[in-house]
Amino acid sequence: MPEASPVEVLLVEDQPQDLELTLRALRKAGVHHRIQIARDGAEALDFLFSESRQANGRFGSLPKVVVLDLKLPKVDGLEVLQELKRHPHTETLPVVILTSSREPRDIARSYQLGVNSYIVKPVDCDGFSSTVQALGRYWLHLNHPPRLLA
Amino acid sequence: MPEASPVEVLLVEDQPQDLELTLRALRKAGVHHRIQIARDGAEALDFLFSESRQANGRFGSLPKVVVLDLKLPKVDGLEVLQELKRHPHTETLPVVILTSSREPRDIARSYQLGVNSYIVKPVDCDGFSSTVQALGRYWLHLNHPPRLLA
Repeated sequence: MPEASPVEVLLVEDQPQDLELTLRALRKAGVHHRIQIARDGAEALDFLFSESRQANGRFGSLPKVVVLDLKLPKVDGLEVLQELKRHPHTETLPVVILTSSREPRDIARSYQLGVNSYIVKPVDCDGFSSTVQALGRYWLHLNHPPRLLA
Repeated sequence: MPEASPVEVLLVEDQPQDLELTLRALRKAGVHHRIQIARDGAEALDFLFSESRQANGRFGSLPKVVVLDLKLPKVDGLEVLQELKRHPHTETLPVVILTSSREPRDIARSYQLGVNSYIVKPVDCDGFSSTVQALGRYWLHLNHPPRLLA
């Protein structure tokens, strides 16, 4: 059975409007690869850990980047980040926070937990779109990801 | 006495040609702020730690990003990265490796040590320039850095 093409971006976002804008901007940036959507933190963790543990306890391929909102239902973004950065099989997976929060405590906590980058969502649509396009280009076409296979 | 304008990029590069190309590309990307150059790993650590420890044991402002080559005289890039990520006052400082190495062990070790991003230098001048421009725009204009003051 041929393997499904691997997910390259895990996008964790609960707000329908932001999700739609982000998807559109990623496609404009040439991200035509598989984008997996999780609408809360629990879905994100389920995807990463169940997907990873699929074959005989071996870890499958992981995305090149996780784009993570902070304010999420069930498990919030900081808890997701903490889980990813403390688990040996996801600790090197690049995580970018994409949030409306400029709260110094959110920024400080994200960096303390090992976030790779922290981006504040611009409030206007054009700014949002160009920011997400640059984010997509950077993490999918420029950054060299770690080899995330067991 | 007015404080000198803070350094926004610490560029650690020993190869004169790569240094010149990187500086030119950063300026093209609109990075007109202060760029501090270190030509080996020891100079980079001296700058960050002596600059940081200047006034009454308090830490001064740190750059928004460190752009770090791997193969460096005196103290190599991986040792610099390790020092920065284990020292409490620099552990959240964003570090981008910019190197010609595609060696899996360099990539793996960089991520294990907590690098924020790993970029392979394109071999052609145009590719090099556009990559460094995108790097500069991302880390200086898009990424929200941690508050790096004591």
